[in-house]
Amino acid sequence: MAKVKYWRCLLVDIIEGRNPVFELLRGGRRVKKIFIAKGIKENEVIKKIKVLAKRKGVPIEVVLKEKIESHSHIETHQGIIAYAEDFEYQPLVDFLAKVNKTSEAMVLILDEVTDPQNFGSLIRSAEACGVDGIIISKKRSVGITPVVCKISAGAIEHVSIIQVSNLVQAVERLKENGFWIFGADASAEKKYYDADLAGKLCIVLGGEDKGIARLLLEKCDFLIKIPMFGKVNSLNVAVAGAILMCEARRQRIRG
Amino acid sequence: MAKVKYWRCLLVDIIEGRNPVFELLRGGRRVKKIFIAKGIKENEVIKKIKVLAKRKGVPIEVVLKEKIESHSHIETHQGIIAYAEDFEYQPLVDFLAKVNKTSEAMVLILDEVTDPQNFGSLIRSAEACGVDGIIISKKRSVGITPVVCKISAGAIEHVSIIQVSNLVQAVERLKENGFWIFGADASAEKKYYDADLAGKLCIVLGGEDKGIARLLLEKCDFLIKIPMFGKVNSLNVAVAGAILMCEARRQRIRG
Repeated sequence: MAKVKYWRCLLVDIIEGRNPVFELLRGGRRVKKIFIAKGIKENEVIKKIKVLAKRKGVPIEVVLKEKIESHSHIETHQGIIAYAEDFEYQPLVDFLAKVNKTSEAMVLILDEVTDPQNFGSLIRSAEACGVDGIIISKKRSVGITPVVCKISAGAIEHVSIIQVSNLVQAVERLKENGFWIFGADASAEKKYYDADLAGKLCIVLGGEDKGIARLLLEKCDFLIKIPMFGKVNSLNVAVAGAILMCEARRQRIRG
Repeated sequence: MAKVKYWRCLLVDIIEGRNPVFELLRGGRRVKKIFIAKGIKENEVIKKIKVLAKRKGVPIEVVLKEKIESHSHIETHQGIIAYAEDFEYQPLVDFLAKVNKTSEAMVLILDEVTDPQNFGSLIRSAEACGVDGIIISKKRSVGITPVVCKISAGAIEHVSIIQVSNLVQAVERLKENGFWIFGADASAEKKYYDADLAGKLCIVLGGEDKGIARLLLEKCDFLIKIPMFGKVNSLNVAVAGAILMCEARRQRIRG
């Protein structure tokens, strides 16, 4: 049991790479310590990290590259890692209380996205599009790992992530709170740019191979697709998600 | 010298994973042989591969998983690899002769995209959006590796890839042929959805960190940006490229 806890801690606690560490310092988590590799090229981000760490009283230790490597879980640590308190998921009820104040809230639901690269990419795109929160399932989804943090370019520090036991129930709560639920489905008739994505919006994306689970699909108010013009006719889930979120944002701006 | 050639051959020649092998068989390259791991789960794609290979006279050999692994260059080979003749880049002059027949041709230029995951993802999105060709530089760009093929989901077999010595000169050729050149630049004033992306279009994307090189940027007719609504304020280049290509396609359909 102790070992499991230790590993969970390790997976959640270490933030690696320049942008993830910078965004960690800009975010709300308490940061325990930063390790920087000796002889690292001091670019703009590293300079900003040093200023921000000093201001927040976070100790920086310059260590040999080998030490960084022994602590690191990913190849692309860029010679910098930080230890921070555990990433905290937001309870759905708290999230709903917060987003209900805005009439244009945007939520993303990921149903069994299992690839950390895709999850990290979706977090980054969601944050850039001003999405308020991402709801994932406790079962069969990838969690917040160092790879997810790195691929999100640190955006993970600025988006609410809500982990629930049952996505169907989460959709029901969203509906009760006035959200319209749009499921992305390749067999849908409606094209995404013909859908009205203004107002309180929830976009549901399915996993890499399977798409949205049947029960969840049945709960969607509308199904939309991205039309395809090639022979392969599929988009990566992270790319498809970004296209839908960007279109929703575009419609909000242009009315 | 012989060794270098051997490695080049290896990098170009092996196609790994279910979709890439299926698309290889649907594409124009001559396929020498397919290895399938013994005991592999026979899903729809594997069945289609067997039918297509038989029709095209491509031998399939069932081998131990260990043999696949010893030949493979990536982890996600899914128990299937194929050997094919080298991937062929299309000469720019041939490509222009072909696309000049259509008034709505779309071209993507990648200036120093160095991450194979991003390159593969851009190929997949470009193919899905009906982009006619992707122009890359001979220097400082990632080539066609097994990872690129895999991430492209096999779309590499259906898009023209043009490798040139000088991207600035390639842009000049495109302009002479009536293309409008749109550079993606975070500091641009014009938002992508306010730009007229109909007609003969070339979208230029810069590398992961540096953006578009100055000389190439100066050659662009217009600069466009994707507006950002978060704190991190950057999109992955593969995601940004897909959003721009999808918007260009949307405008072509909706007029």
